[in-house]
Amino acid sequence: MQTHVGKTKSHKNFFFKCSSCNYSYETSMPSFISEELPKLLEVKPANLKRSFENGNIKFYDNQGIQGLQFRKSVGRIESGTMICLGDKIDIIRGFPKIRRTLMLSPSVKIHFNQEVAVEEKMNGYNVRIALINNKIIAFTRGGYICPYTTKKAPEIMEMENFFMDHPDLVICGEMVGTENPYVTHHYREIGKLGFRIFDLREKASNKPMSVFDKVEALEFYGLPHVELFGIIDINEAPERIFELVIELGREDREGVVIKDPEMKIEPLKYTSSQAHNGEIQYAFTYPFDFGRSFFFSRVIREGFQAYELNESEDEIRKRAHMIGESIIYPMIRTIKHVADDNSASEDIIIHVDNLKEAEDFARHLRDLGVVATVHSFRDGKAIIRRVHQSTTDRISNFLRGGLY
Amino acid sequence: MQTHVGKTKSHKNFFFKCSSCNYSYETSMPSFISEELPKLLEVKPANLKRSFENGNIKFYDNQGIQGLQFRKSVGRIESGTMICLGDKIDIIRGFPKIRRTLMLSPSVKIHFNQEVAVEEKMNGYNVRIALINNKIIAFTRGGYICPYTTKKAPEIMEMENFFMDHPDLVICGEMVGTENPYVTHHYREIGKLGFRIFDLREKASNKPMSVFDKVEALEFYGLPHVELFGIIDINEAPERIFELVIELGREDREGVVIKDPEMKIEPLKYTSSQAHNGEIQYAFTYPFDFGRSFFFSRVIREGFQAYELNESEDEIRKRAHMIGESIIYPMIRTIKHVADDNSASEDIIIHVDNLKEAEDFARHLRDLGVVATVHSFRDGKAIIRRVHQSTTDRISNFLRGGLY
Repeated sequence: MQTHVGKTKSHKNFFFKCSSCNYSYETSMPSFISEELPKLLEVKPANLKRSFENGNIKFYDNQGIQGLQFRKSVGRIESGTMICLGDKIDIIRGFPKIRRTLMLSPSVKIHFNQEVAVEEKMNGYNVRIALINNKIIAFTRGGYICPYTTKKAPEIMEMENFFMDHPDLVICGEMVGTENPYVTHHYREIGKLGFRIFDLREKASNKPMSVFDKVEALEFYGLPHVELFGIIDINEAPERIFELVIELGREDREGVVIKDPEMKIEPLKYTSSQAHNGEIQYAFTYPFDFGRSFFFSRVIREGFQAYELNESEDEIRKRAHMIGESIIYPMIRTIKHVADDNSASEDIIIHVDNLKEAEDFARHLRDLGVVATVHSFRDGKAIIRRVHQSTTDRISNFLRGGLY
Repeated sequence: MQTHVGKTKSHKNFFFKCSSCNYSYETSMPSFISEELPKLLEVKPANLKRSFENGNIKFYDNQGIQGLQFRKSVGRIESGTMICLGDKIDIIRGFPKIRRTLMLSPSVKIHFNQEVAVEEKMNGYNVRIALINNKIIAFTRGGYICPYTTKKAPEIMEMENFFMDHPDLVICGEMVGTENPYVTHHYREIGKLGFRIFDLREKASNKPMSVFDKVEALEFYGLPHVELFGIIDINEAPERIFELVIELGREDREGVVIKDPEMKIEPLKYTSSQAHNGEIQYAFTYPFDFGRSFFFSRVIREGFQAYELNESEDEIRKRAHMIGESIIYPMIRTIKHVADDNSASEDIIIHVDNLKEAEDFARHLRDLGVVATVHSFRDGKAIIRRVHQSTTDRISNFLRGGLY
């Protein structure tokens, strides 16, 4: 099947042509959405129609892939879902939001059955990789095709054999390391760029493989998975998870995802104090871009963690001081930086073959609403400068005497 | 002029009857708003009409006063404005928002002329007092008539003579002290309840008296005003204000309002680190009710204050630790309190003549959307318990293992 999209008003004209039998038919995108899509997704036509009219389902055309992107969830269909209109229609479901527990002990016992699988939660960016039109394509959490990840993931790991045997599976994992364009974090075992898989899920249904089957399959194909700390009895789980999270925190690692080994119950996440502070530090480096939205949930996590660990006065004081420092130090550093006539910006390092690839990537970031330009390119290493505009503008304004 | 309001749909019927000539006419409230009010307020009819339709201008009938309450600003007419429909129409304009500077030095010089008047900003609640239908009535910031303040203000200070001579002025001031129903703060010179006046403004126009005339008038009538620290040359102002604010902070006082002595330029406010921390502590005592909205602006103030004071590493560390403690300590205290099966509530002390007055006041709070009940009444002292419902509910839920 081929799809063509009319040019005048792209969402008005929509053609299908079967490449094997040459049967073709034409439909408008609105009627595809209200007539064909409901059958594919098992969602009420009215809900899809409304979402499309509200601009939450968008036509997407990039990197040679045309499709429908879900900017918000519709019924059980997750935000970030992509309906790829290629040789056949491929439905790459959005990665489900993993809920968080603030109190390990009660929630783990309430939520799961006899046992839980505990895996490491890594600090990078969530990627889904799938075979679309016989090409390996990487999607960001929001359902955008990332040109950089699409290029890099196959360089980091060999997925050909896996996808040959399992064209209908989606690899869900975290791109991690110090040189990636979204979330950089140092892991000694990874260095600049690495990938760790945490789920294998079916296209269309989003059904995840059990933890055991997933690990077995990934090891068979030589694909890297996140660390599985073990399958733990529910009664020992809270204590064991606390030990793990505290140990991970000491190594400046993020935390854990707690799963039903059968993957029939939704997973939960729990994170280290160091992760909370790291995020507050980042947020207050660019306070007017991220401070308001990042801050609150992180300090709430700290409060409940201190409570559940029944910390001493001394331990609580240390936690309080750490949070205060995570807020004030980066903020003052940025105020000084902007006062010296700089913008509040961060430099992203990516490795590309040529300047054009770097510029393509900067354009991709701009498509996502990020202010980004190629700052330099040399010996395959590009520096993309990402400017945090609200922080730059508002701090400059206050420094000049602007009122709050 | 008498006004009557129909009973079936209160905003539909609206009668005027002149008490001297007996001329009467009837108009619907919508047509009063789009035809009479624009002339009184010098605002475009369409803007008033829209605001009324959106529910931002409400009919108000309480404590024997009927009127129109502005829940949001319309053009130059401030939120909190009340159009009182009594023997005559009295327009009590909302108290204008005082903007804040984050950087004293540039903004004071940009904003003002040769001199500034510096007055203390006190930590209480903003009240406007005016003569309506020959009665002294106290309005809250939002334009609600506060039964308690209306009763207490005349007990605290003698306003009869002032209003006899100046029926067209509005007394704007702060109700302060440890036993008031809204914002309690200890001032050694005030104790349980006191009032300090900062502005005298004309009804209808909202024009403020100059600082000199205001102080003279208040002293003539023996009415209490906020402290005027002095009229300061603009070049010395930033340094002098910093000295004042640091000294005020040491005494756990809030800060200053910086005014054009002629009151022709809008005032600015600047506050102490102790005030910021005090508010963060309050907010994180009830984190799910106030934490999110209170927090951000307070820490931003701390960042700029530390920067402008060019603080040493040690001073910045102290500031950071103080903020962290202001967040974590109250939050953990409240988590423990709720874990012991209590609600997150605060007790408000008011002094009333009888139980009915206490119950009237609790009802007034509930009208404002506050969960409040009379907890006890004895010897003229009522305790009103105010429950912070979101904090209580969400903390209980997380403690039981609820997910975030």
